[in-house]
Amino acid sequence: MAAELAGNCLIGQSGAPTTVVNASVAGIVTEALNHEVIEEVYGSLNGVHGLLNEDLVDLAAESQQTIRGLRSTPGAALGSCRTKLKKPQDVERALEVLKAHNIRYYFHIGDADSQDTAAKIAELAKAQAYELRVIGIPKGIDNDLPVTDHCPGYGSAAKYIATTVRELAVDAEATSQNDIVTIVEVMGRNTGWLAAAATLSKRRDHPNDPPHLVYLPEVAFDAAKFADDVRRILKREKHCVVVVGEGLVDKDGNYIAVESGDAGSAAQFGGVGDHLREVVETQVGAKVRVARLGVAQRAAAHLTSKTDSDEAFLAGQAAVKAAINGESEKMVTLLRGDGDHYTCETGLAGFADIIGNVKKLPREWINEDGVSMNFQFYRYATPLIQGEVTVPFDNGVPSFVRLHGEMVDKSLPGYEA
Amino acid sequence: MAAELAGNCLIGQSGAPTTVVNASVAGIVTEALNHEVIEEVYGSLNGVHGLLNEDLVDLAAESQQTIRGLRSTPGAALGSCRTKLKKPQDVERALEVLKAHNIRYYFHIGDADSQDTAAKIAELAKAQAYELRVIGIPKGIDNDLPVTDHCPGYGSAAKYIATTVRELAVDAEATSQNDIVTIVEVMGRNTGWLAAAATLSKRRDHPNDPPHLVYLPEVAFDAAKFADDVRRILKREKHCVVVVGEGLVDKDGNYIAVESGDAGSAAQFGGVGDHLREVVETQVGAKVRVARLGVAQRAAAHLTSKTDSDEAFLAGQAAVKAAINGESEKMVTLLRGDGDHYTCETGLAGFADIIGNVKKLPREWINEDGVSMNFQFYRYATPLIQGEVTVPFDNGVPSFVRLHGEMVDKSLPGYEA
Repeated sequence: MAAELAGNCLIGQSGAPTTVVNASVAGIVTEALNHEVIEEVYGSLNGVHGLLNEDLVDLAAESQQTIRGLRSTPGAALGSCRTKLKKPQDVERALEVLKAHNIRYYFHIGDADSQDTAAKIAELAKAQAYELRVIGIPKGIDNDLPVTDHCPGYGSAAKYIATTVRELAVDAEATSQNDIVTIVEVMGRNTGWLAAAATLSKRRDHPNDPPHLVYLPEVAFDAAKFADDVRRILKREKHCVVVVGEGLVDKDGNYIAVESGDAGSAAQFGGVGDHLREVVETQVGAKVRVARLGVAQRAAAHLTSKTDSDEAFLAGQAAVKAAINGESEKMVTLLRGDGDHYTCETGLAGFADIIGNVKKLPREWINEDGVSMNFQFYRYATPLIQGEVTVPFDNGVPSFVRLHGEMVDKSLPGYEA
Repeated sequence: MAAELAGNCLIGQSGAPTTVVNASVAGIVTEALNHEVIEEVYGSLNGVHGLLNEDLVDLAAESQQTIRGLRSTPGAALGSCRTKLKKPQDVERALEVLKAHNIRYYFHIGDADSQDTAAKIAELAKAQAYELRVIGIPKGIDNDLPVTDHCPGYGSAAKYIATTVRELAVDAEATSQNDIVTIVEVMGRNTGWLAAAATLSKRRDHPNDPPHLVYLPEVAFDAAKFADDVRRILKREKHCVVVVGEGLVDKDGNYIAVESGDAGSAAQFGGVGDHLREVVETQVGAKVRVARLGVAQRAAAHLTSKTDSDEAFLAGQAAVKAAINGESEKMVTLLRGDGDHYTCETGLAGFADIIGNVKKLPREWINEDGVSMNFQFYRYATPLIQGEVTVPFDNGVPSFVRLHGEMVDKSLPGYEA
């Protein structure tokens, strides 16, 4: 049993939202209030920005209703940021703010790279002998975090993509006579987890159901083979549904379509669907319809997976429990049980095992044709999209909560980052 | 009271599906079975194709469960087509098929232009003194049919667009600091009904809610004004959400972005979002994210408007009642009540008033700024997106019905269209 550490806690987040990031916030707040050693529960506005500018809000002052509503609200209720703590003086300032508010527990919701920020704060606190427990909570629709079985946010994006592809396919089937190619461009940067998720729209034991072809960043793209693939499907089916991941690469590892930036993480993707359209129009001669689902993939709260939402909440709770138990410099992970029925509990992984690592789709889960998934992927992903979350509708559209956002009094001079 | 006409009925459909076309089919089948004078209830596979090829299915043989399931199934359960009856010999063949199966009631679900097919069959039947009652049922997400207050299919597409824009906006707000422009490209061909529907995502009395700018085919597009509009919003808000209709035109009436075809109905749209992205990147210098919702707009059954679904069913029922009452060569219309509370009943309009006419968004519903809607549009459109339809989910994705499709025996020789 760890020594009791009394003080306040702070939640910050980083990077692109998912539909269940706020469920993790709700999990942290709910669990924190169960522990008397945690006195105040604060949130940092826009992640690192709030930490540097001392923009903190009092989450314990929010209504029960609001905290519950977070479980069906997309985006990031506290605001997020794309900034990392890089300069040593920024890390020092962040720690100064934590000290000023007697923060003894810092919970960082973010992807693998952004846990770096949490790690740096923890390191400096240790160097200064300031007792601080830092726990990361994973998030991200891309599902590319290492160690954890899967990442909160992925299941909901997967459910949205699979649902949309099933609906598009029903439409295409109704209107086509061996002639329409529907191309759906999905996110996922350098991994095919999201593109592969489209195959969850197939009915059990109907491998020929749409999507007929899936192009993944893990498999080098070849335009001639693609044209052949489409021709083959159009001979067999009334129409062809193609799903393509934005980060598709050719045999030399160059992106097929990238709008700005380079092959590093700064790349802004988009347009690979239109590239594939050109190939079909010029080489196959079929009519093409392109849908680019865009940010809807990480924002479609009305299609949140209940399993995903519950696990995101659980990850938030687990972070608090771990910190109370004396853990620090670790990220919560999701562990899948060994049994036939899907079960999930939480574990912990050291920051060092997380930061800078990317989990690709295993090649052995992709069929030899390179454009479809085998049972190993279905066994992995199917449980993650199960269950629906009831989102309240108001006047015909989903109703989301906003934090009241009672600001915590500042006690430090301003800071220029 | 019309003379009693005993015989069989046939349902056919034409053009792009909506999420509620099948609800109209369910309405027709359900009502037809209430009338003893209607003996068999058939469906024509792929609309006109089925009529020419004598591909008819027995809808009365479908289970109750299947007919109920049609109310939450997108696409076109009978199959649709993009073909119209043009050649006189095709019209003659169609009538021959109707006669061969003693069809006395023909129900045609389609948009304005496709009612032409129904009209031609009715005309020839009259010329040949074959007693046939032909009633059209409107459909289409574009909402551009004349006479009817609104068109079944529009409310659901509007609900999907408004929901998606609200969700995207929550995401953008969480991640931006006066710098992100989100562009959402929506359908609608030559009218702005769908683009305008995005404004239904605003909360009541929050005119500054996203979408901040809406570009409609009814308002000539000017790139310099667009750049100014975006700059203005980015000064006021943390981010800017732009919605643009695919059929946007410049001051000379030329399409801003069209992928193939000309200004006629054959144009295939797509790409206007990317055009606007270029303007923002080069003239404003902000980061842009584009989503092209594509066919999902007419296929997202999981976001069907209950009001829309109920009215589509009602339109199907009304078509049968009208035909039983002796009406023919008319299309069912939806009539809005005058009261403060929204009510809707059905009427009838002659084919001549429908075919070839397009209903634009009234200019007086668009604010003077050209990029937002006033209370007249909200009063019109808000009731149409009310209510949710429960779509059954199976294994994490929506479960849709398929017709068993028991074929009716053919009695005619084959036909080469």
